[in-house]
Amino acid sequence: MTQPIDPVALTSDLVRCASVTPEEGGALGVLSDVLEVAGFTCTRVDRGEVSNLYARWGDKGAARSFGFNGHTDVVPVGDRDAWTVDPFGAEIKDGYLYGRGATDMKSGVAAFAAAAVDFVRESPPKGAVILAITGDEEGDAIDGTVALLDWMEREGERMSACLVGEPTCPNKMGEMMKIGRRGSMTGFFTVKGIQGHSAYPHRALNPVPVMARLMDRLASHELDSGTEHFDASTLAVTTIDTGNPANNVIPAECSATVNIRFNDAHSSGSLSTWLRDEADRIADESGATVDLRIQVSGESFITPPGDLSALIAASVEAETGVRPEMSTTGGTSDARFVKNHCPVVEFGLVGKTMHQVDERVAVDQVHQLKAIYARILQDYFA
Amino acid sequence: MTQPIDPVALTSDLVRCASVTPEEGGALGVLSDVLEVAGFTCTRVDRGEVSNLYARWGDKGAARSFGFNGHTDVVPVGDRDAWTVDPFGAEIKDGYLYGRGATDMKSGVAAFAAAAVDFVRESPPKGAVILAITGDEEGDAIDGTVALLDWMEREGERMSACLVGEPTCPNKMGEMMKIGRRGSMTGFFTVKGIQGHSAYPHRALNPVPVMARLMDRLASHELDSGTEHFDASTLAVTTIDTGNPANNVIPAECSATVNIRFNDAHSSGSLSTWLRDEADRIADESGATVDLRIQVSGESFITPPGDLSALIAASVEAETGVRPEMSTTGGTSDARFVKNHCPVVEFGLVGKTMHQVDERVAVDQVHQLKAIYARILQDYFA
Repeated sequence: MTQPIDPVALTSDLVRCASVTPEEGGALGVLSDVLEVAGFTCTRVDRGEVSNLYARWGDKGAARSFGFNGHTDVVPVGDRDAWTVDPFGAEIKDGYLYGRGATDMKSGVAAFAAAAVDFVRESPPKGAVILAITGDEEGDAIDGTVALLDWMEREGERMSACLVGEPTCPNKMGEMMKIGRRGSMTGFFTVKGIQGHSAYPHRALNPVPVMARLMDRLASHELDSGTEHFDASTLAVTTIDTGNPANNVIPAECSATVNIRFNDAHSSGSLSTWLRDEADRIADESGATVDLRIQVSGESFITPPGDLSALIAASVEAETGVRPEMSTTGGTSDARFVKNHCPVVEFGLVGKTMHQVDERVAVDQVHQLKAIYARILQDYFA
Repeated sequence: MTQPIDPVALTSDLVRCASVTPEEGGALGVLSDVLEVAGFTCTRVDRGEVSNLYARWGDKGAARSFGFNGHTDVVPVGDRDAWTVDPFGAEIKDGYLYGRGATDMKSGVAAFAAAAVDFVRESPPKGAVILAITGDEEGDAIDGTVALLDWMEREGERMSACLVGEPTCPNKMGEMMKIGRRGSMTGFFTVKGIQGHSAYPHRALNPVPVMARLMDRLASHELDSGTEHFDASTLAVTTIDTGNPANNVIPAECSATVNIRFNDAHSSGSLSTWLRDEADRIADESGATVDLRIQVSGESFITPPGDLSALIAASVEAETGVRPEMSTTGGTSDARFVKNHCPVVEFGLVGKTMHQVDERVAVDQVHQLKAIYARILQDYFA
């Protein structure tokens, strides 16, 4: 009989691969090695600079197939000197495994890979278990999960349901799962006026107070007060910049950026219309030229509470004693792509140190996460 | 009989001295040479890095003494490659004398020096003619006219009236003189909040919309609608800066600068109180910390229309056919210091190209300006 896979050892092996986007760093090879010996068919799905891994146990045409989605790419180390350990050393001390990606999300990938391998070995299911692992989640996310889903479409590969293993718990293991996400978009405003001397403002057209009023209006506007499954949409003015060092000069131009996180009461289209209307309005009032460029990161989406979320919540509660909140808060994740393929829910560990110096994961949590994922597989195929 | 002084040749000699603040560049020596042969007592009044020139014809204790104030220092050349001539070459073409300081204000200094020399030679007055010429008007203005006035105070030197020869005409020779100036002050605001993620604005305290609202309030506020001799006070928001390149980050801090030009309905003290009250108000409303640093360049001042301004207006009209408006518009000048010593009025030529590339003065205007200054001296001592 084979030994169960140790998810902490597997996380360590992955952390030792310096897989800063778009570098694969050997991480997908580590996973293929573990998966192939357990009978998974592994396919590298590469696009652009990015390597991705598609692994399936069971038949391609299986009526019931459960997928895990995750990424092995990591954000850069940042200030190397501020780290107290080697960011790719996978050092374990005081119950924590340290390293870039320890939390986000090599431990998540290791936990579901370990759970999947043990599961297909110990209780081979009627159906398929799929792992869709990408190397482009922290980057532009163009050649990662999207490339995998495009490939699956072409090849006729299907998941009936999918769990994204990103960290989802703010503080305590088990407290939160995600059944959707708000959309995200960014507006880049430029107000152009007429330069002049501070002593003669009537001969100039100062773009700065025009921008101040526009930003005050946008920031003061209540987009909504939340919907059934979503918190209220929010708008953050992230920067206003002019770069005029001279007190006696009225500048010609001022720029600002707003980031909107929106729920299902809006779409990027409806919000773009609103932003453009406000830009036009202040332009009319002031006589200044107001330019607006909009970048949409993703629309809002939801997998409404149902069988899948109930099954996952029950597994989390059984292993942690904590009933997870079904949340739609937070930033974007690759679930925004997977939702076009099948019902998708996100659950993972506590993400506190992700993207930070001395990123680390509690060793106990990695074991617990594997147990949760294992129970999800058992319940799903029961 | 000696020849009259050619103010254009004297301007050219001055332009050839590279007297970028605080460099004297030989300019004061050029003037001393001309003045001393005509019987002026010349004293160098140096302070700090700056050289200044005090020249008096006539008795120190004279009951009636007319003073001219001006500066020979100039602002830097700026983009040297954009000049079509040598900025210190004093080239004359198509009726214009080119060079840094040609307008601001070596031509003014040359015109009043030439007028004064001719005047004391041809019709020696009962009284004194004084030239107070500084090398620190374009710089911090700490060691220029202020140093001269301090020295005059100590030495018992007095002017009964003073004309500052800065350019005063917006477009047409003779159209404007200045009998006062608005005050000028600058407020530097910093709003400090709490950094955070754009997706979780309730966990952060965004300083940017706080600053936007504060600036909108300040810019929208009507300070006054003008007073008897002054235009309305103005406030210009000259810059708002954050410097946050990350759309998904709410920044911790935002800064902004406002420049106020104020008339005699206000003082820097009353306006400082207003700015501080507005800073405190938005701090209370928002929970952010709002810091304010204030820099006062000068209070407003006025030499109310009277004998001096009437005399100067009449001389201008006699020479140009244009009745000058008695204005209090524009930026600051050294008149703000002289007004503590004696009645002061400003009159000079058209200042269109001052501080610009290819600064130039119409040769005709320099001759005309000398004629105006000569007539002022004749009328004053008549």
